[in-house]
Amino acid sequence: MSNSKVTGDSKPRVVIVGAGFGGLNAARALAREPVRVTVIDRKNHHTFQPLLYQVATAGLSPGEIAAPIRSILSGHKNVEVLLADVTGFDLDHRVVQTAEAEIPYDYLVVAAGASHAYFGHDEWQPLAPGLKTIEDALEIRRRVLLAFELAERQVATGEPGPPLNFVIVGAGATGIELAGTLAEISRHALAHDFRAIDPARTHIFLLEGGPRVLPAYPEDLSVSAQKQLHRLGVEVHTSTMVTRVEPGAVHFRAADSRDMRLEAAVVLWAAGVAASPLGKKLGVPADRAGRVPVQPDLSLAGHTEVFVIGDLAAVKDGQGKMLPGVAPVAMQQGRFVAKLIGQEIKSQAAPPSSRSLREGGNPRPAVRPTFHYWDKGSLATIGRAAAVAQFGKIHISGFVAWLAWLFIHILFLIGFRNRVLVFIQWAWSYVTYERGARLITGSTYLPGWTAANPPTDEPSSPELNAQEIHAAAPK
Amino acid sequence: MSNSKVTGDSKPRVVIVGAGFGGLNAARALAREPVRVTVIDRKNHHTFQPLLYQVATAGLSPGEIAAPIRSILSGHKNVEVLLADVTGFDLDHRVVQTAEAEIPYDYLVVAAGASHAYFGHDEWQPLAPGLKTIEDALEIRRRVLLAFELAERQVATGEPGPPLNFVIVGAGATGIELAGTLAEISRHALAHDFRAIDPARTHIFLLEGGPRVLPAYPEDLSVSAQKQLHRLGVEVHTSTMVTRVEPGAVHFRAADSRDMRLEAAVVLWAAGVAASPLGKKLGVPADRAGRVPVQPDLSLAGHTEVFVIGDLAAVKDGQGKMLPGVAPVAMQQGRFVAKLIGQEIKSQAAPPSSRSLREGGNPRPAVRPTFHYWDKGSLATIGRAAAVAQFGKIHISGFVAWLAWLFIHILFLIGFRNRVLVFIQWAWSYVTYERGARLITGSTYLPGWTAANPPTDEPSSPELNAQEIHAAAPK
Repeated sequence: MSNSKVTGDSKPRVVIVGAGFGGLNAARALAREPVRVTVIDRKNHHTFQPLLYQVATAGLSPGEIAAPIRSILSGHKNVEVLLADVTGFDLDHRVVQTAEAEIPYDYLVVAAGASHAYFGHDEWQPLAPGLKTIEDALEIRRRVLLAFELAERQVATGEPGPPLNFVIVGAGATGIELAGTLAEISRHALAHDFRAIDPARTHIFLLEGGPRVLPAYPEDLSVSAQKQLHRLGVEVHTSTMVTRVEPGAVHFRAADSRDMRLEAAVVLWAAGVAASPLGKKLGVPADRAGRVPVQPDLSLAGHTEVFVIGDLAAVKDGQGKMLPGVAPVAMQQGRFVAKLIGQEIKSQAAPPSSRSLREGGNPRPAVRPTFHYWDKGSLATIGRAAAVAQFGKIHISGFVAWLAWLFIHILFLIGFRNRVLVFIQWAWSYVTYERGARLITGSTYLPGWTAANPPTDEPSSPELNAQEIHAAAPK
Repeated sequence: MSNSKVTGDSKPRVVIVGAGFGGLNAARALAREPVRVTVIDRKNHHTFQPLLYQVATAGLSPGEIAAPIRSILSGHKNVEVLLADVTGFDLDHRVVQTAEAEIPYDYLVVAAGASHAYFGHDEWQPLAPGLKTIEDALEIRRRVLLAFELAERQVATGEPGPPLNFVIVGAGATGIELAGTLAEISRHALAHDFRAIDPARTHIFLLEGGPRVLPAYPEDLSVSAQKQLHRLGVEVHTSTMVTRVEPGAVHFRAADSRDMRLEAAVVLWAAGVAASPLGKKLGVPADRAGRVPVQPDLSLAGHTEVFVIGDLAAVKDGQGKMLPGVAPVAMQQGRFVAKLIGQEIKSQAAPPSSRSLREGGNPRPAVRPTFHYWDKGSLATIGRAAAVAQFGKIHISGFVAWLAWLFIHILFLIGFRNRVLVFIQWAWSYVTYERGARLITGSTYLPGWTAANPPTDEPSSPELNAQEIHAAAPK
């Protein structure tokens, strides 16, 4: 059998699928336990997702917010890293299936994360990229910078350029980060370099289906965030449902129920989240967002040796409210299951061999601890010195919240080297308004952008310019 | 006419095609002259090509060696930048043709640079990428890192991994930089992180068609470079002609005329150079490498208002030897034509309008200066503290040459911010042996690499392992 070499190890083997915040924290905590750990991911790098929007808006380079998984874990002798695409699980035989090999486990931690949801309209994806991976961020950066370049070219060669509208769909944390940062760079960093474009023709629209921005935050912080966005020049439209995305335009139903069409040089998607399709391969019915329901100890019903953590897990807090898909939840869950696995293995007089574990039924104690999320607070940044933060009952906004955000995010950036460099970059661009990573790589094609931007074949919904849209927005 | 807005300017217009070292230096020098300058490039960024190999080998991020052209030139009010693909020229009507518009000029500077040549075998290109652009560097980085990841996966899942051979074709400056750096990272940076791979199974081959490495350098420096490469573990094969590249292998005729086949996880191309195809659109017969012959003043025969500079121009020095395609030549040529254009325009009592220049025949003086290249020396780096340098009659090798190389390259990096950050990166990785930019982005496909690496359908040429190859190499 091809896995003989691997299963020859006498220590119980824990396989972790996914090296996001959940998987990585589980691996690090397990490194201290008498187990052999295998981390499988289809990327070679861990991505610090909270700063992805900085790559998308040309403030940071990919290498500054992502680090090779094996380099993060290289200090731990009992942890190995495999680059592979997990295709499924055989829970009865306790193996993880990949295209190349089957990886056996004694314990399995599935931390495969989440991706975008287009509400059943996957065809919008190429027109409105979301922001989950380094590749996504580079694609968004390419489109944003290209829109400015193409507009500059049109004006410089005497053609009337189309309105330079950037539309962001969804006003959660990612949506407001993108909107705020785009507003800043179009006003400062880029306005200086582009001579022909009239900065007044650049508009940033933030469309949110719900009644307020940052729906997961307390209402006073939503109000504050919306004010800060307005100050940056972002045109916020709440209670606004996107009904269609086409090359060069977005259709939506506005708060007053009018159907509108908005020309858009770039459309970015920050609205829906769908859990990894791997969730469906675990044999239990997932919820609407594809998340897997778990027991209070985060294990899968009927499989005490399988845990699901992070964005993929549907976990409720003490009040019955679903835990949000944020890094601290995944990190705490990763450490929780690592500790639980370690304790179980150590509680047995002699460490069980892989074989005895695999064949000897269920060696775990009947009563396991329950996972409790310790909410240390939430932070969302809007732009330069603009943010909102909640620490328990304390709600803060503006510069102080931004400083807290900056401090916490740089502190948690994995790898010391990155931390120092990112801090230098940040200090530099704060002082100079410069964006250091403004490279367009890849093709110079932008969907819906042609020399004359011809009208679409369906002129049914009213065409609006920025002023009209603004007037139609809820007050 | 759509260009009316543009040609309405009364100052003579200089159009520069290409924002490499030549074009950028011409633009900067022209910024002080009474002209209007338009720089056209199909990328939005200038690439500092001498450090591209550092991006390819994961030492630097793209943003650290490339900067937006319009940001480099943003201080010059009379210089505009256009992102556009030049498709041709109408020399009679003095316009540059792009897909979107025609750009009229009074003076034209063509600095479109060079790309790779595969000696008539363009089908090798996807199998053996070259190193001229940021995209090339990212593709090479992807392949190199992926080769290690896939080998690790094979060993970890119990399969016998293929030999991990990296083959670099061509031992000019780029070839030895790639070979030396790959040898270092496979021995230090990566060996630490990959547990399953046996470092002894990693081999770096450098294949050179000519009799010695660095053919453009004095012979003693070639000898020194080859010694330094050996010390790093690179297996150098001179007088070795590549006859075929296929997925997963390279065929070549060795120095002893034997035909050989070498398995290769990654093949990199650093052999031939072909001038930009735009050279052929200038209406004069190009040389074998596609370079355009020019007059002593770098102008095109019959068109005193058109200049060709940089890698695209075929220019001989006083001894009749062709000038090399290196940055200092292009930079000096750019400044030379800028000064010449400036003087001609100022020497006319009143600055000529665009119209009078375009219609009034040839207003230039009959005698123009001749371009002379001032050779300040050449430098090539091989690895950590390994390099060769020539300054006139002074030839140096090793650590001192490397320090000179480091100092000069960081000094010339365009943009102060990059310079500081690159220096910090360099210091950091010198001390720690770490490679900071080890991200694999894009697909995880590697040509010729399958789970079992099956033998090819043509086992005609003898298969060699690393030892045999080494034995067959010229002493």
